[in-house]
Amino acid sequence: MNLVRRLGAELIGSALLAALVIGSGIAAQRLSPTDTGLQLLENAFATALGLPVLILIFGPVSGAHFNPVVSLVDSLSGRRAWRDTALYIPTQVLGCIAGAILANIMFASTAVTISTTDRLTPATFLSEIVATAGLILVIFVLARTDRARLTPAAVGAYIGAAYFFTSSASFANPAITIGRIFSDTFAGIAPASAPGFIAAQLVGAGVGFAVIRFLYPAERLTTS
Amino acid sequence: MNLVRRLGAELIGSALLAALVIGSGIAAQRLSPTDTGLQLLENAFATALGLPVLILIFGPVSGAHFNPVVSLVDSLSGRRAWRDTALYIPTQVLGCIAGAILANIMFASTAVTISTTDRLTPATFLSEIVATAGLILVIFVLARTDRARLTPAAVGAYIGAAYFFTSSASFANPAITIGRIFSDTFAGIAPASAPGFIAAQLVGAGVGFAVIRFLYPAERLTTS
Amino acid sequence: MNLVRRLGAELIGSALLAALVIGSGIAAQRLSPTDTGLQLLENAFATALGLPVLILIFGPVSGAHFNPVVSLVDSLSGRRAWRDTALYIPTQVLGCIAGAILANIMFASTAVTISTTDRLTPATFLSEIVATAGLILVIFVLARTDRARLTPAAVGAYIGAAYFFTSSASFANPAITIGRIFSDTFAGIAPASAPGFIAAQLVGAGVGFAVIRFLYPAERLTTS
Amino acid sequence: MNLVRRLGAELIGSALLAALVIGSGIAAQRLSPTDTGLQLLENAFATALGLPVLILIFGPVSGAHFNPVVSLVDSLSGRRAWRDTALYIPTQVLGCIAGAILANIMFASTAVTISTTDRLTPATFLSEIVATAGLILVIFVLARTDRARLTPAAVGAYIGAAYFFTSSASFANPAITIGRIFSDTFAGIAPASAPGFIAAQLVGAGVGFAVIRFLYPAERLTTS
Repeated sequence: MNLVRRLGAELIGSALLAALVIGSGIAAQRLSPTDTGLQLLENAFATALGLPVLILIFGPVSGAHFNPVVSLVDSLSGRRAWRDTALYIPTQVLGCIAGAILANIMFASTAVTISTTDRLTPATFLSEIVATAGLILVIFVLARTDRARLTPAAVGAYIGAAYFFTSSASFANPAITIGRIFSDTFAGIAPASAPGFIAAQLVGAGVGFAVIRFLYPAERLTTS
Repeated sequence: MNLVRRLGAELIGSALLAALVIGSGIAAQRLSPTDTGLQLLENAFATALGLPVLILIFGPVSGAHFNPVVSLVDSLSGRRAWRDTALYIPTQVLGCIAGAILANIMFASTAVTISTTDRLTPATFLSEIVATAGLILVIFVLARTDRARLTPAAVGAYIGAAYFFTSSASFANPAITIGRIFSDTFAGIAPASAPGFIAAQLVGAGVGFAVIRFLYPAERLTTS
Repeated sequence: MNLVRRLGAELIGSALLAALVIGSGIAAQRLSPTDTGLQLLENAFATALGLPVLILIFGPVSGAHFNPVVSLVDSLSGRRAWRDTALYIPTQVLGCIAGAILANIMFASTAVTISTTDRLTPATFLSEIVATAGLILVIFVLARTDRARLTPAAVGAYIGAAYFFTSSASFANPAITIGRIFSDTFAGIAPASAPGFIAAQLVGAGVGFAVIRFLYPAERLTTS
Repeated sequence: MNLVRRLGAELIGSALLAALVIGSGIAAQRLSPTDTGLQLLENAFATALGLPVLILIFGPVSGAHFNPVVSLVDSLSGRRAWRDTALYIPTQVLGCIAGAILANIMFASTAVTISTTDRLTPATFLSEIVATAGLILVIFVLARTDRARLTPAAVGAYIGAAYFFTSSASFANPAITIGRIFSDTFAGIAPASAPGFIAAQLVGAGVGFAVIRFLYPAERLTTS
């Protein structure tokens, strides 16, 4: 699979992921104006169903990461060349920004608006650590145990649940965190909160990686 | 599998699809009168669960397209004779109209009412392009990569998500677009909006087809 | 598998099915008093998730019918001895009545109350025909095409969808129809409406059986 | 798989389970303040999606019980050494308490609060018996019939349904019952109600075990 196609898959996939997350957030906010929990349920329902489909579509080409911390851990685990990850990350960020703009236009909003939703608190910082550690666990435990065919459904289910069991709504992804800056809607995040979220996500990825190494030591690594 | 059975499967399947989409829309509108988002959630819940079942039932006979753009791309990909597609399309349209009438009667409404819901705007036009491109991607990427057994669940999940992440509620199907004209209820569409929706769906199918050819070039085509 | 165990499985399984359907209806009615659609969504959510589990548990013993029309079509198709079906049917009815009582007690209601919810209209009569035909189609098409491993999830999804796309809330089962008489709550049905519902279900089973014979003629029957 | 890793998996998994159940309960309570049924739907949605993921992650290491009655029945069935179960149980309790505290902190509450929600009544006592019997049935029937690969999804679906079809919200787990004491929020339980709930769960486990032995006698036990 050549590099152009791999980067193309990450670009389009990340854009569709951002459009999914942000678009369903806009719909929820507009259509269910009186109950924030119902908005989040609609947002989580759409994400839990849509994300696995995106992984199925783009997975065979690029691995369907759409997420810098996933690419980083992939290289850290020796499963993917660092050069790939170095190119994947800016592509994912670009894709997520494009997807935010696409969502805005699909809902007849101004193409680019900057979110004013401050989200960073100690509680959301901790939430992002937990959410990202869990995401890394799901993906790489399934990969290590030869059950990668379950990854699409499991990742979708995990994120759908994490929207609710964290107070940060589980971004768990630096690229989508940056993309969400560009939509002043339900799923948006103010620029000032983004660096803190990304820092927490990196910590969470480290925690997840450490837990995997404890639970599934290298010598048990299956060579798929 | 002879042609009469294939056309029968497309006819009955398309009718049940329209009854599912329109019927659950009527139920949602009547039972949850105060929150449009909740109505859409109920409509999407029913569609995401019911559509895979219809594909499972009719798939082995006709392919369970229920959708002219799917049949068109199937023939365009060399997977199905053009004669089949030429016969499938009117059958699908007829089925969807019959299903709309069935839904109306199941809910004790007048058998045929013409929708007065104007839906066509630049934003919904773009939404239908995106929604249809995504649907084509799901179906034909899974077919090309020997994972067609995942198609029923993936298509249901995709449509359930797309109800929310687009502003058009993701019709993504010219036959159901025409069928929905015949029910002046939650899921209906005014006749004047239908041609624009269908045009967008054709564009979206083309976009989806182009993306597949980029991501999965012909030489990788598995011969199943 | 001896007959006592088979009947035991149908008895306990039918009781749990009735407790699931009626119990979640009581919870929904009490906890979401202001929106009937939300009540139905909670009821459908619980049923769509719980029903597949019951089929998984009891399927290997008795086939997990819990439904007289399923047993009838099973014998009609030559897949099960008529003697079994003759014993299954009263067992299923008994189980569903027991389950209704169990649900009432689990929710601190009087153990037996007779429903006062009149449900029979031409629209619900037609709805039950459609709902039951669809249920028969799902179960026996999957059996005929060697995909019975998908039956639990498909039946759960189908019923969850049919709660919404019909105006009768898709009972599609004479035993549960009788059981629901014994709980004057959300899922109940007045005794006077039950015979009409059961008649519609028998008609629907016939329609479903006829459609299967058209789509999947006997000579294609796989011998599993 | 050495014991330290097994206990580590039960500890972390139980903590994440408690954080999932309690955290999503806090989110639901805060975000949907006007409808208890909607709160329970959000809580059940998150649990039904998140629990299977936890079982997938930790299953290959420890069996992913997170539940003393599951460990007890596992040893009772001769599938796991009693020494393991003796160590698993306190680990599960500790994990669930830690998870409750984690949930409180993730939602910016006081780290430890003692629940004031009295839950014990004859109706909830019966509900916990039924809920736990059902849980034992799902897990051990799937194990006995060589379908353990379905356990993660089936357990998540079962618990999601049981939140609604019982009046106790289906704790079905002594460790999570104790953990929930430490969060005075939606999912909490007052200390005085906990012993009754645990007693009911032990009875339910016994009932479930007896039903399995009736339906699937020992001689049919598959040796996996």
